[in-house]
Amino acid sequence: MYNWEQVRDKVNAFVDNLKFEREPLELYKPIRYTLAQSGKRVRPVLCLMAYNLYKDTIDEALYPAVAMETYHNYTLIHDDVMDRADIRRGKPTVCAKWGDTTAILSGDTMLLLAYEFLAANAPADKLPQMLALFTETAKEVSDGQQYDLDFEKRSDVTEQEYMEMIRLKTSVLIAASLKMGGLVAGASESDLENLYAYGETMGLAFQLQDDLLDVYGDVEIFGKKIGGDIRCNKKTFLLIKTMELASPAQLAEINGWISNPACDDDAKVAYFTSLYTSLGVKDICEKRICELFAKCDAFIDNLSVSPERKANLKAFADSLLNRNL
Amino acid sequence: MYNWEQVRDKVNAFVDNLKFEREPLELYKPIRYTLAQSGKRVRPVLCLMAYNLYKDTIDEALYPAVAMETYHNYTLIHDDVMDRADIRRGKPTVCAKWGDTTAILSGDTMLLLAYEFLAANAPADKLPQMLALFTETAKEVSDGQQYDLDFEKRSDVTEQEYMEMIRLKTSVLIAASLKMGGLVAGASESDLENLYAYGETMGLAFQLQDDLLDVYGDVEIFGKKIGGDIRCNKKTFLLIKTMELASPAQLAEINGWISNPACDDDAKVAYFTSLYTSLGVKDICEKRICELFAKCDAFIDNLSVSPERKANLKAFADSLLNRNL
Repeated sequence: MYNWEQVRDKVNAFVDNLKFEREPLELYKPIRYTLAQSGKRVRPVLCLMAYNLYKDTIDEALYPAVAMETYHNYTLIHDDVMDRADIRRGKPTVCAKWGDTTAILSGDTMLLLAYEFLAANAPADKLPQMLALFTETAKEVSDGQQYDLDFEKRSDVTEQEYMEMIRLKTSVLIAASLKMGGLVAGASESDLENLYAYGETMGLAFQLQDDLLDVYGDVEIFGKKIGGDIRCNKKTFLLIKTMELASPAQLAEINGWISNPACDDDAKVAYFTSLYTSLGVKDICEKRICELFAKCDAFIDNLSVSPERKANLKAFADSLLNRNL
Repeated sequence: MYNWEQVRDKVNAFVDNLKFEREPLELYKPIRYTLAQSGKRVRPVLCLMAYNLYKDTIDEALYPAVAMETYHNYTLIHDDVMDRADIRRGKPTVCAKWGDTTAILSGDTMLLLAYEFLAANAPADKLPQMLALFTETAKEVSDGQQYDLDFEKRSDVTEQEYMEMIRLKTSVLIAASLKMGGLVAGASESDLENLYAYGETMGLAFQLQDDLLDVYGDVEIFGKKIGGDIRCNKKTFLLIKTMELASPAQLAEINGWISNPACDDDAKVAYFTSLYTSLGVKDICEKRICELFAKCDAFIDNLSVSPERKANLKAFADSLLNRNL
C-alpha cells in the first residue's frame, strides 16, 4: 500500500520518463511543456489510489492513470484558446507562447496520446469498458465546457444549472479517474459506483473551492491573478448566489459593474469581494464545500476494502481540502 | 458483394440515421452540419469495400467505417480554423458559421465520437489492433498538418518533403481505412499490408489531383474558389516543381509575386497557371498521378481474393481518377 505522496512521486517519475521526442518537434514541444508543469496530478493519483485499494502494487495502472492526466492537460490547452487565457499555473499558456494554431494541434495530439496510454497495456477483457468510460467522460467534459461558454452570454443562470455545468466540466473526470483505477483492478460494480460518486462529489467541492480561491486565494499559491473571474464577469457560484441574495439596489449596482467594460478592474474586484463577504456568500460557499467533503466520506465508507486502505484514500482528500485558504 | 455505389448508399443511410440530438445542441449542431455535407465518403466506402473483399455482408463494419469518416471530418473542422478557411464543399466552414470556439470544441467532440464508433461493436480480439491503427494514423495526420503549417514559413521545401507531408496528412488515413476494413474482416497480415500500401499510394494520387484541381478544376464541381493555393502561396507539388524547373529570371518573377501581398490576385493566378502549363509542370503532375494509380493496381493484384472482388475495388479507384479534369 502506498500513501499519496509516494503515488504522486511514481506519477511524476513516469511522466518525466515520457520523452515525446517524435518529429515534428514543434508539435511535441508544447506537449512536453504542458505535462512538465508541476500540477497536483490529482487525477492520476486518484486513479492509482483507487487501484491500490484492491492491489498491492500500482505499476500496472500507471498508463491509464497518465492517460487521465494527459487528457486533462489537453482540455486545459484547448480551454485556454477558447477562454483567451494567457497564464496557467503561473506560466504562459500554450496559446500565449506558441499561438492558437499550435495550441489546437498539440492539444489534438495530446488527446490521441491519452487514448494511446489508455490502451497501452490494458487487460483485453477490460479495454471495452475502459474505453467506454473514458470516451463518455470526455464527451461530458466537452458538454460542460460548452455550457460554461453558453453561460457567459446569459444573465439568468441558476445555481442548479451552475452545479450541473461544473459537474460535467470538472467532476466527471475526477470520478472517472477513480472508477478507472477500480475498473482496471477488478473492483465490484458496487465499489465502482461508490468510487465514481466519491469523485463526482469531490470534484464539485474542488470547483467551489476554486471559485473561492479566485477571490480569496493567495496569488503565489493559486498561480493565477486574483479576481480573474470577477474581472471577466464569470458566473461562479459566488456571483450566482450573490445575485440571488442581493437587494434590488445591490442588484442594480452589480449590473452596473458587469455592463461597464470600461470600469476600474481593481475597484470592481474590491467591490465584489466585499459584497460576497458581507452578504455571507463566502460563508455559504465554504459551508457547501465542507458538506460536499463530508458526503465524500460516506462513499468511501461504502467501499468493500479494509479501513486502512480507506484511511489512505481519505488522507489524500484531506490534503486537498482547504489547500491554501 | 456490393458495388461502390451500393456501399456509399449504405454509408449515407447510416450517417443520416445518426441523430446527434444530445444536449448541448450548440455543440452537436455543427457536428450534424459537417457530417451531412455530401462529401464523397471515400474513407468509409474504402473501409467497407476492403471488408467486403473477405465477407459477403458489410453491416458489421459500418461503425468502424463511419469512425474513419467522423475522424476525417473532425480534421477538416480544425484545419479550417488553423487555415482561416471560410468555404468548404461550397458551404461556410464551421468556424466561419459558428466561430472558432465552437469549431474547436465541436471538433474535439467529433474526435471522441470517432473513437466511440470505432469501439461500438468491435470484436474484442480485434479492438486493441483497431485502436492502435487508428491512434497511430491520427497522430501521423496531426504530424502532417504540422509540417504543412511549417512549410508555409519556408521557401526551400523539396519535392521529397512535400510528398512525405501529403503522405502523412492525406494518405495514411486512406491507407488505414482500407486496412481497418481488412482487419475487422480478419484478412491475413500480407493482405493488410497490401491494402495499406494501396491506400497510401492512392492517397498521394488524390492529393496531387487536388493540387491540380485547385488550379485547373471546375469551380462548380471542386466546391472551392479556383487558384486558392496560388493566392495564399501554398507550396503545392506544382509550385515546388516549378521552382525547381524555372530559369533564374522566372524565379525572380515568381518570388516577386509571392513576396508582394498587395498584388492583383487574379493576375497572380493567371500568371502561375500559365507558367505551370508552359513549364510542363501540369503534364508532370498528371503523369505522376497516372503512375501512382498504376502502382495501386499492383497492390490490389497481390491480394488473396477472387478477381471479381478485386475488380470491384478497382472500379471505385477508377471512379475517383480524373473525377473532374
